Amino acid sequence: MTTIDLNSDLGESYGSWVMGNDVAVLDLVSSANIACGFHAGDATVLFKTVRAAHARHVRIGAHIGYNDIAGFGRRNLDVAHDDLVAETIYQIGAIQAAAKASGAVVEYVKPHGALYNTIAVDEAQAAAVIEGIKLVNPELSLMALAGSQIVEQARAAGLQVEQETFADRAYTADGQLVSRKLPGAVLHDPETAARQALAFATGQPITAITGESVLVDANSICVHGDNPQALALVEKIVTTLAAHEVQVSHAR
Amino acid sequence: MTTIDLNSDLGESYGSWVMGNDVAVLDLVSSANIACGFHAGDATVLFKTVRAAHARHVRIGAHIGYNDIAGFGRRNLDVAHDDLVAETIYQIGAIQAAAKASGAVVEYVKPHGALYNTIAVDEAQAAAVIEGIKLVNPELSLMALAGSQIVEQARAAGLQVEQETFADRAYTADGQLVSRKLPGAVLHDPETAARQALAFATGQPITAITGESVLVDANSICVHGDNPQALALVEKIVTTLAAHEVQVSHAR
Amino acid sequence: MTTIDLNSDLGESYGSWVMGNDVAVLDLVSSANIACGFHAGDATVLFKTVRAAHARHVRIGAHIGYNDIAGFGRRNLDVAHDDLVAETIYQIGAIQAAAKASGAVVEYVKPHGALYNTIAVDEAQAAAVIEGIKLVNPELSLMALAGSQIVEQARAAGLQVEQETFADRAYTADGQLVSRKLPGAVLHDPETAARQALAFATGQPITAITGESVLVDANSICVHGDNPQALALVEKIVTTLAAHEVQVSHAR
Amino acid sequence: MTTIDLNSDLGESYGSWVMGNDVAVLDLVSSANIACGFHAGDATVLFKTVRAAHARHVRIGAHIGYNDIAGFGRRNLDVAHDDLVAETIYQIGAIQAAAKASGAVVEYVKPHGALYNTIAVDEAQAAAVIEGIKLVNPELSLMALAGSQIVEQARAAGLQVEQETFADRAYTADGQLVSRKLPGAVLHDPETAARQALAFATGQPITAITGESVLVDANSICVHGDNPQALALVEKIVTTLAAHEVQVSHAR
Repeated sequence: MTTIDLNSDLGESYGSWVMGNDVAVLDLVSSANIACGFHAGDATVLFKTVRAAHARHVRIGAHIGYNDIAGFGRRNLDVAHDDLVAETIYQIGAIQAAAKASGAVVEYVKPHGALYNTIAVDEAQAAAVIEGIKLVNPELSLMALAGSQIVEQARAAGLQVEQETFADRAYTADGQLVSRKLPGAVLHDPETAARQALAFATGQPITAITGESVLVDANSICVHGDNPQALALVEKIVTTLAAHEVQVSHAR
Repeated sequence: MTTIDLNSDLGESYGSWVMGNDVAVLDLVSSANIACGFHAGDATVLFKTVRAAHARHVRIGAHIGYNDIAGFGRRNLDVAHDDLVAETIYQIGAIQAAAKASGAVVEYVKPHGALYNTIAVDEAQAAAVIEGIKLVNPELSLMALAGSQIVEQARAAGLQVEQETFADRAYTADGQLVSRKLPGAVLHDPETAARQALAFATGQPITAITGESVLVDANSICVHGDNPQALALVEKIVTTLAAHEVQVSHAR
Repeated sequence: MTTIDLNSDLGESYGSWVMGNDVAVLDLVSSANIACGFHAGDATVLFKTVRAAHARHVRIGAHIGYNDIAGFGRRNLDVAHDDLVAETIYQIGAIQAAAKASGAVVEYVKPHGALYNTIAVDEAQAAAVIEGIKLVNPELSLMALAGSQIVEQARAAGLQVEQETFADRAYTADGQLVSRKLPGAVLHDPETAARQALAFATGQPITAITGESVLVDANSICVHGDNPQALALVEKIVTTLAAHEVQVSHAR
Repeated sequence: MTTIDLNSDLGESYGSWVMGNDVAVLDLVSSANIACGFHAGDATVLFKTVRAAHARHVRIGAHIGYNDIAGFGRRNLDVAHDDLVAETIYQIGAIQAAAKASGAVVEYVKPHGALYNTIAVDEAQAAAVIEGIKLVNPELSLMALAGSQIVEQARAAGLQVEQETFADRAYTADGQLVSRKLPGAVLHDPETAARQALAFATGQPITAITGESVLVDANSICVHGDNPQALALVEKIVTTLAAHEVQVSHAR
């Protein structure tokens, strides 16, 4: 049976502030990107979310971000190399301990928000993240934007990379995400998004925003569940995959 | 040859703010209590301090504290049980990763400031710290105030405990610290402090503030080096110990 | 026509985290206790909430709290006198500027959470809050727990005090709140809560938890609107007051 | 008698971390740029520094910065317009209240670090700062980099601008600062720096790094006193100015 990994950003509540619908999402995905307290989450939320993921046999990933709670890690930040290395190590360590305390292990690292976007194009910040991961545990894989420069950079450095795609985002003819600043960047039709997810899962080409067929390497598909509409889309994707005998599961 | 452990609080700089004289202290002590970012320190300082300690063969301990940078962890904080467990796990994880990235290991946990004082008398908060340590790694020892209630509580829970004493603090006839609010609580004379340190190191009784002899179990002696006078006292202690063939070293 | 002030805690969102239902509540109350960024809120939320309140002719109050975002200002914190004075000044200044920038003015100060509860019984922390308010603007009134010690302390210091009551909390026979730790502390029946609010508004005695009649001075009634059930209770209270010709309005 | 304003960044301590030598500097300068808690300083430090400046008749300025304590406001941050407006308002309000509580007033605003550098060239962020200042108090002047684009932008918006120069920094032939990344950017010779300060103060041209004479408008000269060498330079400048009958004083 074909399998595909679905991942989602979780554990983003903070102190008394609740965000997202983690329990519902954990029943649908195979990989949980869990915030480590720098852009979202805190020690309590982190530990609770790790346990909840582990209880549902969902794979645990370190969702590391810029040290910017106020901006939810979505603002570009001109962080120095040594700081980014150390912050990568720190965040991975925090979630590793939460996993250890839960009888689980952390299996991958997915940078968040502005850090994710920056390392897709900025070799210097990418190098810092790669260095941090390797110093803590070179067996951790890096989940990164499919087709971006960090994929080769991380592989050349010896890391295993999981290429991530997006069911509800349009792609260019050369397999890159269409910028959110452009019209048509987001696929609002659930049918279209589910069809694209199926194509990713089965290794088929998708249709680019300009009409061409394009094949995008996809080890994982990112989904969101923080509002009812988003959650419905995830359910639609899972149903569509199942109808085509694709199982949501992290390949082992 | 007799040995005694000298420990000191290190890695307390924060961002652009420098605190202490870590390099000088690391040349004198055998154990470094390194701040984990909750009451002091940050990811960069933590990683740098762990490497510096390891390079000098100084033992690495997690100096965990309340989540209170503004108050340097010195203010009583009414933290909930689950939060304190999770924050203990989180901080230990952060320093474990910094140690792993440095080829080192964390060997013990020493709570800081108000947390240290609280768990010496408050069984509930003590239980949370003990639970957190055990969930991450029950092989970690707990460094705690000699003769305080948490010593027995932690041992009953299966943790190894290192009893900590203070060279420059006066003790009561029953082996407790004299409160800093009382006159005579601090021993300002370096000779007296060094003599008391030697007594701790050699298992001899010390002289209580009221004149009696009292034997205090001491696995480690806490020293400070954040100003020239404090550093001079540490040097005096080390010299006095050496003159009596006591080696500063963590017993293994 | 009789009038009564209804106040509510608002502006408690933080960065990307939304809390409460401020717009709906602002249509029902006459006074907005707006978080100033220490226990909740941030500069953007503060400014936006001040403008929204002013646009609806709702009175603006500084909802000051402990410097503890992680704990939402609900944890006891052993803050030093000078810090509490300075933090009172700082928070009031921040909201005053937001008001000035909106063409509005701040009219009162209501401490939040653990600070509110502490100054109701602790003269030392109460003195620091009173000192801070007076240094910034002695014309600001202090909203405090009806019948608590700070009421007299603040009046003796020359501040105007607004005594606050709670529609849905039970009172003892001597006019004090029943502790939340005791059964019956919260009035879950909307009819009962609305009737109690009406009594406060009209200067009638309420029925204590032990059955006696007790008169509680009430300059303002606190209501909450952060969930649909709570909002429904506020609407019930407003309707009940209107049916008895009591207008929700800050007396001037 | 000719007068010139000397300004310095003060109030940059944070919690238990001390930075700078505020008392010594306050005896030498005429304007204090006091950190408002976003990049440095806290409520207590702010209030204390405002009182210390006022006691010495030193003019009080709001030293506003990015919301980035971890980076000391020195890292570029992609802050949204509304956030920057609100954060400008918030910080000014905080120091205004500290001034009011001290019997003083805030007279100007000087952005700090990365914000200072960004608004010298970025009209969008500059517009947010200008908008924030005007909303709180359009009588506040803006202290900004002499000859930078924000000078005209702020004046066009109706603000009074104070052009700031640096005694110990080299200038290009067109009156711009030589980038710190280039050799010769910093004038290490105290004599040269003092002579340049005197030229600024007396409206004489200075010598550009390439040898030409260039006239730079200077309403204020920035000096630093956070180490003995820096403090000695300030003393040298003050002595040189006095020898030429230039008084350190904010013109009124």
